[in-house]
Amino acid sequence: MSLIVQKYGGSSVSDAEALKRVAARVVAAKKAGNDLVVVVSAMGDTTDELLDLAGQVTEKPPAREMDILLTAGERVSMALLSMAVNDLGVTAHAYTGQQAGLRTDNQYGKASIVGIVPERIARDVKEGTVAIIAGFQGVNELNDVTTLGRGGSDTTAVALAAAMHADVCEIYTDVDGLFSADPRIVPTARRVRSLDYEETLELAGQGAKILHLRAVEFARKYSVPLHVRSSYSELEGTWIMNPDERDMESPIITGIAHDRSQAKLSILGVPDVPGKAAKVFGRVAEVGANIDMIVQNIAASDPGKTDISFTLPHDSGPVALAAIEDMKDELQYREVTYNEQIGKLSLIGAGMRSHPGVSAKLFGALAAAGINIEMISTSEIRISVVVNIEELDKAVRAVHTAFDLDAEDTQAVVYGGTGR
Amino acid sequence: MSLIVQKYGGSSVSDAEALKRVAARVVAAKKAGNDLVVVVSAMGDTTDELLDLAGQVTEKPPAREMDILLTAGERVSMALLSMAVNDLGVTAHAYTGQQAGLRTDNQYGKASIVGIVPERIARDVKEGTVAIIAGFQGVNELNDVTTLGRGGSDTTAVALAAAMHADVCEIYTDVDGLFSADPRIVPTARRVRSLDYEETLELAGQGAKILHLRAVEFARKYSVPLHVRSSYSELEGTWIMNPDERDMESPIITGIAHDRSQAKLSILGVPDVPGKAAKVFGRVAEVGANIDMIVQNIAASDPGKTDISFTLPHDSGPVALAAIEDMKDELQYREVTYNEQIGKLSLIGAGMRSHPGVSAKLFGALAAAGINIEMISTSEIRISVVVNIEELDKAVRAVHTAFDLDAEDTQAVVYGGTGR
Repeated sequence: MSLIVQKYGGSSVSDAEALKRVAARVVAAKKAGNDLVVVVSAMGDTTDELLDLAGQVTEKPPAREMDILLTAGERVSMALLSMAVNDLGVTAHAYTGQQAGLRTDNQYGKASIVGIVPERIARDVKEGTVAIIAGFQGVNELNDVTTLGRGGSDTTAVALAAAMHADVCEIYTDVDGLFSADPRIVPTARRVRSLDYEETLELAGQGAKILHLRAVEFARKYSVPLHVRSSYSELEGTWIMNPDERDMESPIITGIAHDRSQAKLSILGVPDVPGKAAKVFGRVAEVGANIDMIVQNIAASDPGKTDISFTLPHDSGPVALAAIEDMKDELQYREVTYNEQIGKLSLIGAGMRSHPGVSAKLFGALAAAGINIEMISTSEIRISVVVNIEELDKAVRAVHTAFDLDAEDTQAVVYGGTGR
Repeated sequence: MSLIVQKYGGSSVSDAEALKRVAARVVAAKKAGNDLVVVVSAMGDTTDELLDLAGQVTEKPPAREMDILLTAGERVSMALLSMAVNDLGVTAHAYTGQQAGLRTDNQYGKASIVGIVPERIARDVKEGTVAIIAGFQGVNELNDVTTLGRGGSDTTAVALAAAMHADVCEIYTDVDGLFSADPRIVPTARRVRSLDYEETLELAGQGAKILHLRAVEFARKYSVPLHVRSSYSELEGTWIMNPDERDMESPIITGIAHDRSQAKLSILGVPDVPGKAAKVFGRVAEVGANIDMIVQNIAASDPGKTDISFTLPHDSGPVALAAIEDMKDELQYREVTYNEQIGKLSLIGAGMRSHPGVSAKLFGALAAAGINIEMISTSEIRISVVVNIEELDKAVRAVHTAFDLDAEDTQAVVYGGTGR
């Protein structure tokens, strides 16, 4: 008998019909002889509706009360899903994060899990009950409810799977798994059979919106095997696990991620003396901007000067730009530029550094497609390039083909967000 | 400094505007120098919407899961009210029934309060925080949420007021207090300034829908002064307290209640031997019918036989009737009749038995109006009569006038239900 943790997102439980479909799936897994823990998000638009209500009452809702409000969404979905499972003749109980023993710190709205005491649900599951758990929430030391922020339900599922030593954590979504590229851009993209955690982290961090970084990090830390699959089909999805458990023949290049959410800020003509970069990034961190790529080059046209470029999310752009402009006297740079019309393409795969041909092939493919590269950055398992946003789709397709990732039989799938 | 417990029903918090109005009222009471605990019901139609969702998922929702589902309503309203109070510059925190220390038994859907441990909210209130409490809910020994059933929010408020030794428990509703009769039937009905608990129990039990029996019983048990008033005006409402604290000049007759929800079941020609009534009411209790009035008379036209009549709610009628029909051989009665076309009028007042003129005046007023009395029953502080439902309104008006209850200045008020 296996212990399976399943997680269903908001789009899988958007209305009563969807809930009943999920219930049937839960019951099938239970009747196949498994012990089951099911983590569920709020139904469809519930969260947006609650946020709207709060907006009607106040412009500055206290974070503690906001968490109380938002967790009403999971309360509804977990109760209804439990009812639907019971209706099919299988005993289920719904549990809040508190009841499931999910302890967090006190950061309302973005709490971190500090521990899980799953004794109650472990006992009930052992006795044959399907445990339906509210995703996205826990309880702090004050006995107040907290929410885990973006990706919270994925994280709840992975954390429970880790604490209960589950055999697998199944993340149900509206696509068939992780793909070698976004199928909306590359119609020939194929489902990736398996990935290791690092590759998934790069894919997730680089803009593939299926799985949240945080949940993958949790899974890596506790070696929880993940299975990302569609709640609309019985197809196998993508398995994410330790490399030694993976198919030995898995290809070196696993996929291509892209990201339109970044802007590029360049500080041109900075005197090339020690400490300038520290000042720049110290100040940028102070204003709360999350830096992604950083490139620093000697400015060829201007001896003794250097250019510093970095990318950051659009919404952090204006504050970071203002901060850098305020430092003009201190940094003594010539000029600062800011550009939101960029796109980032990342090629993900294991052992990339040990295969030097990979970057050459990547740059060659882009050059052949007539696409100019504005920035480059690399890691052990990733090469990222920044291009003009108008050319991003063409770049993704060109690189996908160059690395032989195109599938035999193409699938029409829509890449969606995961909500919580 | 006084400690006030306020309770606002669903109609007082029907939308964001209503919540802001209630918040202003809470803040005014706080700024007047009081310590405040506020109990709130679910917003407007929330409960019906949640019931509808459950109905879409299953025809037989488990009671435990239903309580989880329904308590989402208070979770939303308490969080929003707390936000609205904070928005006005006064610190407020929302608390679930569990956080407020409201312990109940395990009867999901109609739990009884077994104890209150209000230390956390008492401490926070002492430090100046307004405590916003979810009505209608508690937690059982399993750490599962339970709901208190009909009148649950009133009961939550009164129980907290008792446990915290509050100076008053204010029940806010959409009318100005309790009236000498339903103002929709008797336009000259006047607001009752004060009542004792027993009178209120009779008024509530006899069909006045402002306050729930259960909350009044709780208030009586712990001598909690209640103040029933409108959330739409600053007028004083009706005070409910011990007789020795009341205005000495309060009139002997306090009001008239009426009830259209009862049916009358008569068993005619039952042999007048001991044990028949016990059999009848034993069986009726077994099928779960709640008996209200009981009258037994010798059948004048049929020596050695007796007639037994009782009233019970419409929805219990068919099962009770079937049960009595099944007992025909055992009871050896001649005939059974069942009539839903009845209405009950109750005259409430202190010391009615010691004023024998009261019943004479009541029966005289009905006779003068040409209204036939079908049943009579009395208690220390109440006389109830059953009449044809078509004549109920006329009867209420006639009795109201006969007892000089008509107000000088009439008020246009609508009698509403209290929801939870």
